Amino acid sequence: MSISEQTMANAIRALAMDAVQAANSGHPGMPMGMADVATVLFRDFLKFDATAPHWADRDRFVLSAGHGSMLIYALLHLSGYARPTMDDIRNFRQLHSPCAGHPENFELPGVECTTGPLGQGLAMAVGMAMAERHLNGVFGDDLVDHKTWVIAGDGCLMEGINHEAIGLAGHLKLGRLNVLWDDNRITIDGDVNMSSSEDIKARYVATDWHVVSCDGHDFADIRRALSEAAADPRPSLVACRTIIGKGAPNKQGGHSVHGSPLGGDEIAAARAELGWAHAPFEIPADIKAEWELAGKRGDAARAEWEARLAASANKAEFERRMAGELPDGDLGLKSYIDGLLADPKKVATRKASEMALEVLTAAVPEMVGGSADLTGSNNTKTKATTPFGPESYDGRYVYYGIREFGMAAAMNGMALHGGIIPYGGTFLVFSDYCRNAIRMSALQRQRVVYVLTHDSIGLGEDGPTHQPIEHIMSLRMIPNLEVFRPADVIETAECWELALRNENTPSVLALTRQNLPQLRTEAAENRCARGAYRLFASGEDRKVVIIATGSEVEIAMAVALNLETHGIGADVVSMPSWNRFMAQPASYRDEILPHNVLRVSIEAGTTFGWEAITGINGLRFGIDTFGASAPIEALYDHFGLTADKITPQIVAALND
Amino acid sequence: MSISEQTMANAIRALAMDAVQAANSGHPGMPMGMADVATVLFRDFLKFDATAPHWADRDRFVLSAGHGSMLIYALLHLSGYARPTMDDIRNFRQLHSPCAGHPENFELPGVECTTGPLGQGLAMAVGMAMAERHLNGVFGDDLVDHKTWVIAGDGCLMEGINHEAIGLAGHLKLGRLNVLWDDNRITIDGDVNMSSSEDIKARYVATDWHVVSCDGHDFADIRRALSEAAADPRPSLVACRTIIGKGAPNKQGGHSVHGSPLGGDEIAAARAELGWAHAPFEIPADIKAEWELAGKRGDAARAEWEARLAASANKAEFERRMAGELPDGDLGLKSYIDGLLADPKKVATRKASEMALEVLTAAVPEMVGGSADLTGSNNTKTKATTPFGPESYDGRYVYYGIREFGMAAAMNGMALHGGIIPYGGTFLVFSDYCRNAIRMSALQRQRVVYVLTHDSIGLGEDGPTHQPIEHIMSLRMIPNLEVFRPADVIETAECWELALRNENTPSVLALTRQNLPQLRTEAAENRCARGAYRLFASGEDRKVVIIATGSEVEIAMAVALNLETHGIGADVVSMPSWNRFMAQPASYRDEILPHNVLRVSIEAGTTFGWEAITGINGLRFGIDTFGASAPIEALYDHFGLTADKITPQIVAALND
Repeated sequence: MSISEQTMANAIRALAMDAVQAANSGHPGMPMGMADVATVLFRDFLKFDATAPHWADRDRFVLSAGHGSMLIYALLHLSGYARPTMDDIRNFRQLHSPCAGHPENFELPGVECTTGPLGQGLAMAVGMAMAERHLNGVFGDDLVDHKTWVIAGDGCLMEGINHEAIGLAGHLKLGRLNVLWDDNRITIDGDVNMSSSEDIKARYVATDWHVVSCDGHDFADIRRALSEAAADPRPSLVACRTIIGKGAPNKQGGHSVHGSPLGGDEIAAARAELGWAHAPFEIPADIKAEWELAGKRGDAARAEWEARLAASANKAEFERRMAGELPDGDLGLKSYIDGLLADPKKVATRKASEMALEVLTAAVPEMVGGSADLTGSNNTKTKATTPFGPESYDGRYVYYGIREFGMAAAMNGMALHGGIIPYGGTFLVFSDYCRNAIRMSALQRQRVVYVLTHDSIGLGEDGPTHQPIEHIMSLRMIPNLEVFRPADVIETAECWELALRNENTPSVLALTRQNLPQLRTEAAENRCARGAYRLFASGEDRKVVIIATGSEVEIAMAVALNLETHGIGADVVSMPSWNRFMAQPASYRDEILPHNVLRVSIEAGTTFGWEAITGINGLRFGIDTFGASAPIEALYDHFGLTADKITPQIVAALND
Repeated sequence: MSISEQTMANAIRALAMDAVQAANSGHPGMPMGMADVATVLFRDFLKFDATAPHWADRDRFVLSAGHGSMLIYALLHLSGYARPTMDDIRNFRQLHSPCAGHPENFELPGVECTTGPLGQGLAMAVGMAMAERHLNGVFGDDLVDHKTWVIAGDGCLMEGINHEAIGLAGHLKLGRLNVLWDDNRITIDGDVNMSSSEDIKARYVATDWHVVSCDGHDFADIRRALSEAAADPRPSLVACRTIIGKGAPNKQGGHSVHGSPLGGDEIAAARAELGWAHAPFEIPADIKAEWELAGKRGDAARAEWEARLAASANKAEFERRMAGELPDGDLGLKSYIDGLLADPKKVATRKASEMALEVLTAAVPEMVGGSADLTGSNNTKTKATTPFGPESYDGRYVYYGIREFGMAAAMNGMALHGGIIPYGGTFLVFSDYCRNAIRMSALQRQRVVYVLTHDSIGLGEDGPTHQPIEHIMSLRMIPNLEVFRPADVIETAECWELALRNENTPSVLALTRQNLPQLRTEAAENRCARGAYRLFASGEDRKVVIIATGSEVEIAMAVALNLETHGIGADVVSMPSWNRFMAQPASYRDEILPHNVLRVSIEAGTTFGWEAITGINGLRFGIDTFGASAPIEALYDHFGLTADKITPQIVAALND
């Protein structure tokens, strides 16, 4: 071979330092430090075909240290992916370039997930490895037999989510997961030992991981370590001892090289140090050809896999799941809802969710559920979802443990892997613990369903630490996240259907602990689909419209009936999805929320934001302080959320 | 001694099972399982005086497993605290009882922090232990010489924040911190081994902790283990092997005893098993007396400490800090601001924050700063805040590492300990990582200041993972949290002053990466104190009021000048604190935001919620999608946040 591994790795270094310099922004240190390790990974270990980036059985590669984005852009370009082109790389960090500051899954095939928020890439990779084992359990080695590789830095390992992610991976014996740790002993503030004295390897061993070390700049040693990692039945941590910014002779090894351009002088010095005589953004043809050979290594394996798929009895089902297409038909919901209409049920919406899930998980085999140690409270387990684990990877229920953030990131990873629709539960208030992963579901456009129960003071005695106040509203404002708060057993089923059909949008289901009456008496169409609808229209002249969500729709109904006794006509609008309603045409919104009436909102959470619905002059009933510990009836009374307390305030407002 | 330790412990068990039964809600398993360990701790180790619960040099006790709240209520009552009374305990989990579902620091002296959200109690205890060492470094052994004790369950140890907290504690060599782990091998979903295979002790050892084990139902063995923990110079984990619900003969050891009342039959069986013949809520006088002896153990030590304090030259300063009173005067701000008026500065508000901090940290020695590995980006380090660490506990700057959640919880712990005003930095978008700790600052009414920089798309090329969109608005809706977004160097100083004077309220400072011109030309009073104020009034007839925050105030000014050229008068209102403005009298609000003009908001974040200010018919300029990766100018143009793009839309709206 005329082109050495070192030269191949130096091509990465050159692109990284040139692109960061051109952008005058970015992180050269990590790509230069990990160039040698990444070269070995892509040249000798990673199973992929750069010309077929969507091959379902490819190994997944996750750059958890997303700030080092030029590493993956260089790898994809060099190995022959159609994008990024060299022009894309020249436009690193510019508007509309697919080479964004941090890697984005929706911009480039080969970028398996969006990274940057530290720790989450590795935690999503755990989900990908879970997905691989699950689909292997269902479809067998012929169709699913790949690994997940991660490059992570000290930041990813110091974040709390790392503990959750590796605990889950170790417990689940995800042996096909291999994490290459960029052990450069540098953080932004300075040396790692300014803030940490941890024996990271010992911690991984304590969590049932296999740990191996290597010199991250010795190609043979890297190869040895990756071989050991690939062979070990446990998930592996490969500690790659590296020098950050390796190749920049005056700056390497220090934190100044982490997140700033090297500057012209240092780049010139690096070119000399590396023996890289080529102009910026110039990769000689022979070097590119050698890299493209690596990119085509998987070609034969892919062709064999395609032949196996073509011959498989499971071909249609496998392709359906991987394409993210639901089974045809109504998923069993019509007869379920007809049954409810015939025989109404007063249940908590968390229980209603379980009832809907019994139907849906039977009809949709790609649904994989779970809970962060609140299975019986979140009502997330169904008959069809048997436990997932090392002895039963075909199982569909994950006992995530007390790991909300790890669960959410793992669900993102499963959805990104494809072939799975993940859902998982915790208490709504603890959405705080996984909030950035929920945001990452939305940013990455993934169909992940969050089952968030105990959605208000209605949970009662557990008190203010457990009672959401600002949570529903604060989730509504995350872009591309749909927040559902159904009011009864039928709305819950409808919202579940909408969540499953939200192909590129994650959903939150905010669900009650307490029982709610069945309010709906017809279900000719999915009334939740438009976000809000008129549930009740008074016989009296309409002077008021009451908009409520979830458990407060029952109160709104009682208020409307009270008002009728005063001769005041009030509509009740149930609004299970704010976001969906706001996206309706103005004509529909005006029909549901006519002008020239008093608009009143009732929601057992913050009133902040409700002016958008009620106008400044409307009335807003909610809770703008923290909650309290007491039985539910006492709390609703204490916070003024009863028909008896609300009705006279509406009457008074009308008389003003 | 006629009353055995076992009898003392059984008194806890009896109160726990009776109170949970009476409330028909709560968690008996943990208090019954840890009753023996807690008895030894309170009887033989914890330095406290139940009659003087505010004694500054008391040991701190944190029940991190807050769901086991009856344990601490029983301990406080039995050992002689004035509250809770037996009536309080009878009203466990009822409205207005101080015995809330989870322990609340603002309800009962002796409850050092509010717990329930798992993992945070232990992480706050790390902050308390840091505070103790810092104050010891400043005031010496005579005044500050105490320990911090924690009871934590598996949930606290499995949460990600545990990794951050113990990493920090191990690194900082907080040897006076001792964690008693309720090793009962049970979680809500079932046995711990359903979701975890971790060797917890090995993980703690890997993080420089001392680990010791004991039989949590063998008093001598507990005493041995606590002695070893107390003596070791490292932070200690005491693994207490216990049986959950110990004493309930048919239910103990299983997860059903975790979070539900035992029921009358099982309580009767437990009474028999424990040899506890007394009626519910009845504690025989001799048993109470024995407990109160334990509660008075610290009396002599306290008296000696008070004598030392009285004789100390540092008495006034120590008492001032512990009382949370700022030094007298203007903290140096007046001359600083006068200097800015004389010589205006165009700087990023993160830099403006550093400039204000230089003044404030010099004047306020109880300020202890830090950053989650973004010191140079958050601009949180000043000359006065030298590094805090094992060799310099009197230092005032904490390199928290890449541990946002751990940092926030530690800051809560420091504030709760008293004597410190903590502030710490990260990027605004990563407030998501510590969101529940920010909420807990607010719930616990603690003066903690979050320095959250890079507060919009203005951060530029790092892209959507790093660009806050929903964050500012979603923080504004947390009760008792003040969110400041200053517009220039003077507003930044004013907001800092207000944050420091917010004695029972945490603050967020949302600060820019990019430079902003100095807009203010006078500072006769703190204009930010009312939340919003008129920064500019056009000479033309007022038809428009533009409300903006932070970096967008500059844009609002340019829009107003543009409008003037169209003969349209526009006010510019700078609104650094939404919450504060909303709390002003209606007369002030109406004066600033008069009716019958077009109201326009500009903020480089979600427009969600701005209807409260602009009305539904106003105009709202912001960003309701995720951001993008590009240089700042390109981003503001792309998202339409320029004077040239906004002005014609206002003109058009006026012409409608």
